[in-house]
Amino acid sequence: MTRRLRVAIPLFPKLTALDAIGPYEVLAQVPAFDITFVGHARGEVRDGNGMLGLVVDGRFEDLPSPDVIIFPGGDTRLLQSDVRVLDWVRGAHASTTWTTSVCAGSLVLGAAGLLDGLTATTHWARYADLAACGATPVPERVVEHLDRRIITAAGVSAGIDMALRLTELLEDRTAAQAAQLLIEYDPQPPFDCGIRPKATDEVMDRVREYDAPRR
Amino acid sequence: MTRRLRVAIPLFPKLTALDAIGPYEVLAQVPAFDITFVGHARGEVRDGNGMLGLVVDGRFEDLPSPDVIIFPGGDTRLLQSDVRVLDWVRGAHASTTWTTSVCAGSLVLGAAGLLDGLTATTHWARYADLAACGATPVPERVVEHLDRRIITAAGVSAGIDMALRLTELLEDRTAAQAAQLLIEYDPQPPFDCGIRPKATDEVMDRVREYDAPRR
Repeated sequence: MTRRLRVAIPLFPKLTALDAIGPYEVLAQVPAFDITFVGHARGEVRDGNGMLGLVVDGRFEDLPSPDVIIFPGGDTRLLQSDVRVLDWVRGAHASTTWTTSVCAGSLVLGAAGLLDGLTATTHWARYADLAACGATPVPERVVEHLDRRIITAAGVSAGIDMALRLTELLEDRTAAQAAQLLIEYDPQPPFDCGIRPKATDEVMDRVREYDAPRR
Repeated sequence: MTRRLRVAIPLFPKLTALDAIGPYEVLAQVPAFDITFVGHARGEVRDGNGMLGLVVDGRFEDLPSPDVIIFPGGDTRLLQSDVRVLDWVRGAHASTTWTTSVCAGSLVLGAAGLLDGLTATTHWARYADLAACGATPVPERVVEHLDRRIITAAGVSAGIDMALRLTELLEDRTAAQAAQLLIEYDPQPPFDCGIRPKATDEVMDRVREYDAPRR
């Protein structure tokens, strides 16, 4: 039996849970992938909505050289100046097969210096923050730099699409299609309002109303 | 300020995490929704892949009358004969605005007697199990019975689509569209293999290979 690929998914206070769990559920379908949720300390962290606890199973230092990193987003402000986190990302990236992010997770990759001069993506509301990290934001759902081993995904749910592509790259297309079928990923959104250009003024007013308490 | 709507999402050992977290992340965008993860006891439960711990914040009995139930799937076999769980579901359903499920969560609603004589959906591999619960399985992504206050969603990722519709029903269409934009739900699957009729023999062989260890 070949060695299982080690996937590290960081969890941290105020993360966006679906950023982490969407890609996790895709990759977890493939027995060859051994996934560990890592963080500052073992135990519970609360997500950005405050209503969900997720469990960190290993410290960053317990997985110094994973094959894959999937960095989720959320409130990443503290992480972007957290030397421990940034050192781990840089050190791990030296030997990863793929270093990836979802949503504002790209701001952490950027703060670690991994996106200098590269195109990258993030949540639609965070393009300016991404640019401030030295990357060139592009409004695409998944941005791949195969030569640099870096993939960034757009906001929250984009991590599911990214993880399917990542599964194809790590294993093969059949594996990715099997994962897609196992999670029955045949999206049928009841509305067509998932990107900024499609949102009416009324929707944007509501977005600002809902989002304001967290900023 | 109007009373916040209380949403209960059960967590249990061997659940499928995305069944719960997909709808959670949609509903959590709306400040009017107060979401609690409930279970047999407070503390950590491990998901069906064994690689993720999620935290139960309240016992079933702590939330006897939520406004909304979202029952996720996974390995629901023990739950389907768990008197404590079934009594809670029946008791809570008496006064919910909506009782809903994702994936094999419908088998628990069925075991509680809520789906007798109704059309309903579940994961594509579980139609026979759903029929055994007294429901009539239909291969649709979301099945609504507005008169019975019951909505069932298909496998895993279908919970995201269901939760957007649920948000429209509970709040209004603008709320659902705002949630869709906030989670940037503009799906772009790299393959078109999310439902059983689209899978090739090669993909089905892989699905059986991946799924076998869990059965």
